[in-house]
Amino acid sequence: MKITPEQTAALLREKDNILILCHAHPDGDTLGCGYALCRALLSLEKRAAVLCEDELPRALAFLSEGMPKPDFEPEFVVAVDVATIKLLGDCVGERFGTRVDLCIDHHYTNSLFAENVLLDDTAAAASEIIFQLLQIMHIEITPIIAECLYVGVSTDTGCFRYSNVTSRTLRTAADLMDLGADCARINREIFETKSRSFAMLERMALNSAQTYFDGLLATVTVTQQMFRESGASEDEFDRIAAIPRQIEGVLVGAAIRELKSGAYKVSVRTNPPMNAADICARMNGGGHPAAAGCTLEGSPEENVKTLLLVVEDALRKAGKM
Amino acid sequence: MKITPEQTAALLREKDNILILCHAHPDGDTLGCGYALCRALLSLEKRAAVLCEDELPRALAFLSEGMPKPDFEPEFVVAVDVATIKLLGDCVGERFGTRVDLCIDHHYTNSLFAENVLLDDTAAAASEIIFQLLQIMHIEITPIIAECLYVGVSTDTGCFRYSNVTSRTLRTAADLMDLGADCARINREIFETKSRSFAMLERMALNSAQTYFDGLLATVTVTQQMFRESGASEDEFDRIAAIPRQIEGVLVGAAIRELKSGAYKVSVRTNPPMNAADICARMNGGGHPAAAGCTLEGSPEENVKTLLLVVEDALRKAGKM
Repeated sequence: MKITPEQTAALLREKDNILILCHAHPDGDTLGCGYALCRALLSLEKRAAVLCEDELPRALAFLSEGMPKPDFEPEFVVAVDVATIKLLGDCVGERFGTRVDLCIDHHYTNSLFAENVLLDDTAAAASEIIFQLLQIMHIEITPIIAECLYVGVSTDTGCFRYSNVTSRTLRTAADLMDLGADCARINREIFETKSRSFAMLERMALNSAQTYFDGLLATVTVTQQMFRESGASEDEFDRIAAIPRQIEGVLVGAAIRELKSGAYKVSVRTNPPMNAADICARMNGGGHPAAAGCTLEGSPEENVKTLLLVVEDALRKAGKM
Repeated sequence: MKITPEQTAALLREKDNILILCHAHPDGDTLGCGYALCRALLSLEKRAAVLCEDELPRALAFLSEGMPKPDFEPEFVVAVDVATIKLLGDCVGERFGTRVDLCIDHHYTNSLFAENVLLDDTAAAASEIIFQLLQIMHIEITPIIAECLYVGVSTDTGCFRYSNVTSRTLRTAADLMDLGADCARINREIFETKSRSFAMLERMALNSAQTYFDGLLATVTVTQQMFRESGASEDEFDRIAAIPRQIEGVLVGAAIRELKSGAYKVSVRTNPPMNAADICARMNGGGHPAAAGCTLEGSPEENVKTLLLVVEDALRKAGKM
């Protein structure tokens, strides 16, 4: 059932022993939401904790500092920035996927798997929704809560570059800065710092670049061997995903990453009028209009063939071919 | 004489035949200010035009669409985002440098060369000051004026990444979006699109990277030959300037560009506690605490030696060596 922010606030006020689930391969938005909400609930003297299938990326580890472990039997389970059960990851999904009491999300592809859903697909980041929710709940937004939410809004918008940014996003960021978020430090660490290993991975990815359909589609591919050779960590891949779309004239950019399992994660970024979520939906994935993803289980050659078929069809339907 | 925004508004209201000067090698902020102010003055049925020593970068050409040429004898000369006479460029500086009636600027290094100066060094971009000024003057901010000002605030902050961003910057951007600026298109064209020639220049610049002082200083060098070989235009260099500081551990990043004259422009970007303006001031340049520049006239080897001496001294004074 879809519920309003006010109903969500009332629900959270009455519950205790709350477990907050982030999606697997966590990004700044799911973690920002999770730890902001957790800190807010703790400030109400409730028991609360965050659970995520995978480890936090190193640059985001500060979000979880001092937070309790999920070592209690939850009475109420909340998923944040999670569009489908599958995105919780295998272990967390199996254990809690069918008993999520509340999902707070901004993906218009949300499968409504939770008992209650606070869905606002006009929000650039789910962290915008959490910010509104904490205000409705009259919870003090401390500097660290503000930093959690700032990480969410900034990472989901490429630091306010992408087409999902609204004036609300920018005002939310302004308010969070005024509430004590050290945005300069966060921007520097997340957006303006490259490890030497990442710089090497980036060069390798650039060398793998291919274009198709007269430059309307560009791809880069990152293999497990490239991760090993460069020493870069897999959570640094997000920044690679933005690269193919940046080349002039590209409407669909796809970054293909070999997973440890041998399957391939395809991150699709589009420029108008192409829709990344529509493209990924045809490969059993999902996401946002300009940024989406899917997993392909075939051989590298089969996967590229699949991608080319889907993108060609999408380009034709958009009248671009 | 320093004057207030209200005094500036009164001054502009009473004058006519107004010539607006941008700085040479124009960036988004000086042009955004210039064309926003020009359009605003034209809407008051005044005669006004913008003059700049150099051509507009291609991505910013839309700011000047439909604007009149400076083909009248100015009664009142306004410089925007111009810290010193020298920055006007040789021709414009010689002709108008000593007769600037009003300078609107945000550089704390402003030399106060103008008769009247509206200076606000807490503004991340001079465009923030123009936005405030137009509001005081009750001038309608049309979508294209909003786009001029948005270009200014976004380009001077690396699209809201740099340490100069304040909550006022973000709220200004939010207001400009609400006033009709197509921020998604502007961000895509300015920040998220790389021409193939730029991508090649970027790779050449990366190959030239050098580090000094245990990685505290990083440099890249771009020669006229690299511009020729890649086909990139000189106005694309700004994006190269950000690269050296991005490497993990770097406190001072310097991008050295060979000018057509044979001299070298050094663009310095710093991380705290280092101050780029202080470093450049010692080489007869100036700018902001985190982003500044200077021109060196020596041979490449002499210039690097000069840079190393100045940076070493600054690092020592900051207790970093």
